[in-house]
Amino acid sequence: MFRRLITLEEAEGIIIKNLKVAPLGIEEVDILEACGRVLAVDVVSGIDVPPFNRSTVDGYAVRSEDTFGADENNPIRLRVCGAVSVGEVPKISIGRGEAVEIMTGAPIPDGADAVVMSEHAERMDNEVYIYRAVTKYANIMKAGSDIKRGETVLTEGMVLGAREIGALAAIGLSKVKVYKVPRVAVLSTGAEVTEPGKPLESGKIYDINAYSLSVAVKECGGNPIYLGVFPDDALTIEKALKKALSDADVVITSGGVSVGPKDLIPRVLNTLGDPGVVVCGVAIKPGKPTTVAIIGDKPVFALPGHPASALLVFYLLVRPIIMGLAGRKPKEETIKAIASTRMFSDKGRKTFVMVNVKKDERGRLLADPVSTGLSGAITTLLKADGFIEIPENQQFIDVGEEVVVHLFREL
Amino acid sequence: MFRRLITLEEAEGIIIKNLKVAPLGIEEVDILEACGRVLAVDVVSGIDVPPFNRSTVDGYAVRSEDTFGADENNPIRLRVCGAVSVGEVPKISIGRGEAVEIMTGAPIPDGADAVVMSEHAERMDNEVYIYRAVTKYANIMKAGSDIKRGETVLTEGMVLGAREIGALAAIGLSKVKVYKVPRVAVLSTGAEVTEPGKPLESGKIYDINAYSLSVAVKECGGNPIYLGVFPDDALTIEKALKKALSDADVVITSGGVSVGPKDLIPRVLNTLGDPGVVVCGVAIKPGKPTTVAIIGDKPVFALPGHPASALLVFYLLVRPIIMGLAGRKPKEETIKAIASTRMFSDKGRKTFVMVNVKKDERGRLLADPVSTGLSGAITTLLKADGFIEIPENQQFIDVGEEVVVHLFREL
Repeated sequence: MFRRLITLEEAEGIIIKNLKVAPLGIEEVDILEACGRVLAVDVVSGIDVPPFNRSTVDGYAVRSEDTFGADENNPIRLRVCGAVSVGEVPKISIGRGEAVEIMTGAPIPDGADAVVMSEHAERMDNEVYIYRAVTKYANIMKAGSDIKRGETVLTEGMVLGAREIGALAAIGLSKVKVYKVPRVAVLSTGAEVTEPGKPLESGKIYDINAYSLSVAVKECGGNPIYLGVFPDDALTIEKALKKALSDADVVITSGGVSVGPKDLIPRVLNTLGDPGVVVCGVAIKPGKPTTVAIIGDKPVFALPGHPASALLVFYLLVRPIIMGLAGRKPKEETIKAIASTRMFSDKGRKTFVMVNVKKDERGRLLADPVSTGLSGAITTLLKADGFIEIPENQQFIDVGEEVVVHLFREL
Repeated sequence: MFRRLITLEEAEGIIIKNLKVAPLGIEEVDILEACGRVLAVDVVSGIDVPPFNRSTVDGYAVRSEDTFGADENNPIRLRVCGAVSVGEVPKISIGRGEAVEIMTGAPIPDGADAVVMSEHAERMDNEVYIYRAVTKYANIMKAGSDIKRGETVLTEGMVLGAREIGALAAIGLSKVKVYKVPRVAVLSTGAEVTEPGKPLESGKIYDINAYSLSVAVKECGGNPIYLGVFPDDALTIEKALKKALSDADVVITSGGVSVGPKDLIPRVLNTLGDPGVVVCGVAIKPGKPTTVAIIGDKPVFALPGHPASALLVFYLLVRPIIMGLAGRKPKEETIKAIASTRMFSDKGRKTFVMVNVKKDERGRLLADPVSTGLSGAITTLLKADGFIEIPENQQFIDVGEEVVVHLFREL
């Protein structure tokens, strides 16, 4: 029985139709723990910043009109009636002919409307000679001049970094509401698959995908939950998937989705809940056996076993969903490069070619294809900086053509 | 007394001369915890990958010479003497005229040297008809063909991501040696500075720098230790700095370094150990009061109080040191943009202009200067995507000129 494989775009459409891709919830965290998190609300300042009129210099707070006419040759003499330091509430107010010594950052005392820099003043006991006139508000940073009470400082969806967290601190917030991090269960299947760190029995190989995929989950803002390796038997897989679905918001498996006697995962998935398997094979190369199920409101992605293919399909189909559930805007790192050689597509399938990006002798970036043959699972994984796409209707990309490389990670 | 300020390059030279900027040490972590860490050793594979000859298809393991001459019209008949599954050690070996049923990934049994795909074979009870000849090693992935035992898989200094951690798993390592993360103590000083989350008394303002700098430390691979806010008195500051130096590898303070009656930090620093203060003022704008001390083998950076200036000097002087202590290669995010307006330098000082990067109607990136005036501490912080540099000997950058923007964070 021949069944047309659905395209990548159709697969994306089916997933979106069956799954609500929206932030999972909100939690409050300490601002020092909020680095890289996504702001869940607009942040409005509850205070004026600065909260009071501050001096921006060391000098003398004065009534500006008292200084009018002062210059180097005609200093004006004022009576110093006190001093105000930073962090202090001024207990004095000044009247006509008076000045108050003031430090940078200290509040302006009542009655004063400007500050004369100490460079333009000369103190003599209880008096000060002012050598330069100042205008109203000179050397004063007015209350609310940086941020007004009620002003929106940060908006929902921003990723919090050094600057945003500095702004939260500035308006006095020690905690911030951020979107919950999606929990992503990752498991491997296969009788031959062994966890790293354990002795390798004859006939077995070490697991790769659960590790590379767990880290890829972390890199796109999810919280990976590594569940381990499970043998290919229906009962064990069913139990593992049930646990994964109860512990996590998203489940990723790899291996066990090709056509073969032990390909249990799609079969088991269809017994776990509705709608069940919604995508079973996609017209892409590599990644054709990719299977996606939705169980209730949780997606399960069954990725191919080849490590580079699994990572590719993760970037194509899984990463956008995790980012959506995390409240993150879709964001892809791409760069332009020159094809180092002719690269062919696979007839009727959107073809992705893993490439290594390097500089040629003229400093241009070259995209160099990396074999995804079965004999180079790790080699491919390590060399592939990203992938390029050849559309279904295009036979090849020619040597020297400019291509867009989708990066697995920044170069 | 006039003293020429040292240049930024001189300051960098003095720091490097007085401080060993090399990784602080090595620790072993679980590979699932190693995301973003820096590999401290070359990793050599202790095994062949795959560890045995594997079938790359479902089909029949055969002696290739037995299939020579087989085609659609002249199938060759072999006796099926068993089956081998994935993860199994084959207990059988095959002889002349024999075949063994085999699954993808299963070990090749003794005597066989090729695999015929099941698509080219037809099973009849204990016999199989082979419809296509195979050459030696056809559909076999040979032991060590991906990675040979003794091969160097990853090299010291690599930052571990999904692909590298996948490779570590592949060779069976569950733990990996990485460089220790530098501990960076961050503290603020000032009688007027209040920790966010606490009520704001009259005359006080909230701390910004300890928070933005702590996050900036995290973003460049350090582990920030937030120590809090300390009032400007010599004894308290001395105690705080001593604690910081005992808890951390690097200390950052902000505020309290301008010329004024309460600028204690440089004075206290000189009492804490040799060589003491090595940089006291740098010919840059902003950032002139920047002070650097080396106490024993630990650097103390006393940054200016203005939040955007503090962050700028962090990027210029502190970040490279933290990255060096973390074993990270210096790496700067820069982009090219067009100056949106004429930007002037400050005579005799290397001038840094904070800029906001935005696209114009033609899609070009524009670098738009952001005021660093005292009235816009937070506004500046939030708007500044990065900074551009105007050399000492250049008067201005003209509107429309191409500039390099050093980014605080990727756009």
